[in-house]
Amino acid sequence: MTLDWSMAGPRTPGIATRGEIVPTVPPAEAAADAVDVTALLERGRTLATPVLKAAVDRLAPPMDTVAAYHFGWIDAQGNPADGDGGKAVRPALAVLSAQAAGAAPEVGVPGAVAVELVHNFSLLHDDLMDGDEQRRHRDTVWKVHGPAQAILVGDALFALANEVLLELGTVEAGRATRRLTTASRALIDGQAQDISYEHRDRVSVEECLEMEGNKTGALLACACSIGAVLGGADDLTADTLERYGYHLGLAFQAIDDLLGIWGDPEATGKQTWSDLRQRKKSLPVVAALAAGGPASQRLGDLLAEDAKASDFENFSEEEFAARAALIEEAGGREWTAQEARRQHAIALEALDAVPMPEQVRAQLVALADFVVVRKR
Amino acid sequence: MTLDWSMAGPRTPGIATRGEIVPTVPPAEAAADAVDVTALLERGRTLATPVLKAAVDRLAPPMDTVAAYHFGWIDAQGNPADGDGGKAVRPALAVLSAQAAGAAPEVGVPGAVAVELVHNFSLLHDDLMDGDEQRRHRDTVWKVHGPAQAILVGDALFALANEVLLELGTVEAGRATRRLTTASRALIDGQAQDISYEHRDRVSVEECLEMEGNKTGALLACACSIGAVLGGADDLTADTLERYGYHLGLAFQAIDDLLGIWGDPEATGKQTWSDLRQRKKSLPVVAALAAGGPASQRLGDLLAEDAKASDFENFSEEEFAARAALIEEAGGREWTAQEARRQHAIALEALDAVPMPEQVRAQLVALADFVVVRKR
Repeated sequence: MTLDWSMAGPRTPGIATRGEIVPTVPPAEAAADAVDVTALLERGRTLATPVLKAAVDRLAPPMDTVAAYHFGWIDAQGNPADGDGGKAVRPALAVLSAQAAGAAPEVGVPGAVAVELVHNFSLLHDDLMDGDEQRRHRDTVWKVHGPAQAILVGDALFALANEVLLELGTVEAGRATRRLTTASRALIDGQAQDISYEHRDRVSVEECLEMEGNKTGALLACACSIGAVLGGADDLTADTLERYGYHLGLAFQAIDDLLGIWGDPEATGKQTWSDLRQRKKSLPVVAALAAGGPASQRLGDLLAEDAKASDFENFSEEEFAARAALIEEAGGREWTAQEARRQHAIALEALDAVPMPEQVRAQLVALADFVVVRKR
Repeated sequence: MTLDWSMAGPRTPGIATRGEIVPTVPPAEAAADAVDVTALLERGRTLATPVLKAAVDRLAPPMDTVAAYHFGWIDAQGNPADGDGGKAVRPALAVLSAQAAGAAPEVGVPGAVAVELVHNFSLLHDDLMDGDEQRRHRDTVWKVHGPAQAILVGDALFALANEVLLELGTVEAGRATRRLTTASRALIDGQAQDISYEHRDRVSVEECLEMEGNKTGALLACACSIGAVLGGADDLTADTLERYGYHLGLAFQAIDDLLGIWGDPEATGKQTWSDLRQRKKSLPVVAALAAGGPASQRLGDLLAEDAKASDFENFSEEEFAARAALIEEAGGREWTAQEARRQHAIALEALDAVPMPEQVRAQLVALADFVVVRKR
């Protein structure tokens, strides 16, 4: 994969003015350049989806239908659909993780499916808790099928994740489930932190990173170890792969936070200035507030006023753009891009410590590169 | 334990007129008569509670506090409380289950805690989905701490259940977790059925029993096998213990359905005619509607009118009493009491098939007897 911006497709004038999300990324290792990341993501999806569908089919009605809607396999009327199932970075990682341990890609598939189930359980519940009405360009489950179904189907996917692993009946499956459980607990802790931060004026950069490590890092870490564990890897190897995944997750989230403010709505499926509209205390905001100096001060005053504003929902594009400009001026955007690069580097360093086939390593490096250059 | 009604305490005039919940129960085996069920329940609680508290303490704030409120350890203001933590039938069964396999009671404790965590995860979510405002004489979590906390803490308890088992790191723990996962999935299926039945005019007796088997039977079954599995029991033994627990659960639920209509509010902590007020299609109602005959017909007509009534919430005691009388006249009450006795008998039959120390068997029989004579 080359690290230029061509994968973002032709730029539209409106997007170009927003600037690049991450201006520079470290040079990829030569072998990673040759990797077709799109094909890698597609392979993970192709291997995992049939097993995921078979698992969801086990749910009692109407939960099977609600889950199928959530995954984009049917529309709100129950007709077959070819919805956007997300980037599928996790299944690709889980399958590669098995290969890192010298096992066949198929060995990682139950892990890929279990991780996807936990990820989607959290999406169902988080969207309800956060009141988010849109996900992947479609109405969220609670919006279409009501809050009770969002809770219930989330619960069912969570249970199904453990079932898919434990029915393998092996010692490795027990170890994999334990790691998945640890990651799930972290995920829930992260959502609890995210909710509690909403009610606070200030959140430190450290608190934000801890929250993002829980909400995004832990499950990505698990995706990176689960295939290897199913393939018989020892705990040290699994832990090191998790370290790669955890920091990859933090890089992923830093990019997400940049996209949440400066991303292209066409690509992300979110509104312009999405995170600002939701008053999210994401990394760029938190870093800008912590930076000090006049722009940081003005931003702090403005956000404090916004918190009390009764007409916040009707703010214009220009008002949000002014806030985004202040965040950038205070250095929040550059700091976050730098943080993405830093986490990307730590992830690759961890990868170096794990002995594995060089082709697999190149693919994992390429996926890490993809994470920091993606546009959605 | 003697099978008279003395354990219900002195009867108040108002309660006596409601009649006994189960008029007759099968004669207990002689050995079971000597068992102190109160002490047995207390032992399960004493063994499980410290481990449960330590597990809940691991939750990130404010989830630890919310969970402590749910369990009745603190009040809504955060002050220590000595709340009603429920009957604790499941911990007592899990501990006995270990002894049935020849292991020490302590071996069953992680299983007892895991089952309690899953049970309470389902209470937190079900109360929110059902809009129930009271549980164990106190406001429910969503009422006090909001819907997001009810979802989040429910999720956390569910994850914690697996964690408590899997951190044992043994093959037995993996097998126990698999059974717990199966039970959890059934629990969720049961809640899905319960919700879908609310929107239907008629529910068959078979559908009702299937739903109750999922909602109550499956987790009680797991409580009865999980200690034995942790103690090294083989699958056949565990399956047979689950059969005992499943039918005990159905007996338990049949009694619950009787208490939900004719129970003493002082003892149950619920309103008079609680299930009728909630339009629950519980066993007595479903059996009465299926019975045919004039009373059954009149009941069906009345409930169909009620479904459309705009002033249903303001119905008087007498109006609910009239519906209860029709259910009784149509035979729904006697059928349900008979069903409790039938399930109790199947449970004891299953128990006979498992070799175990006779003292443990007597205790499991006494617990089964307790379930069908309890008043709350």
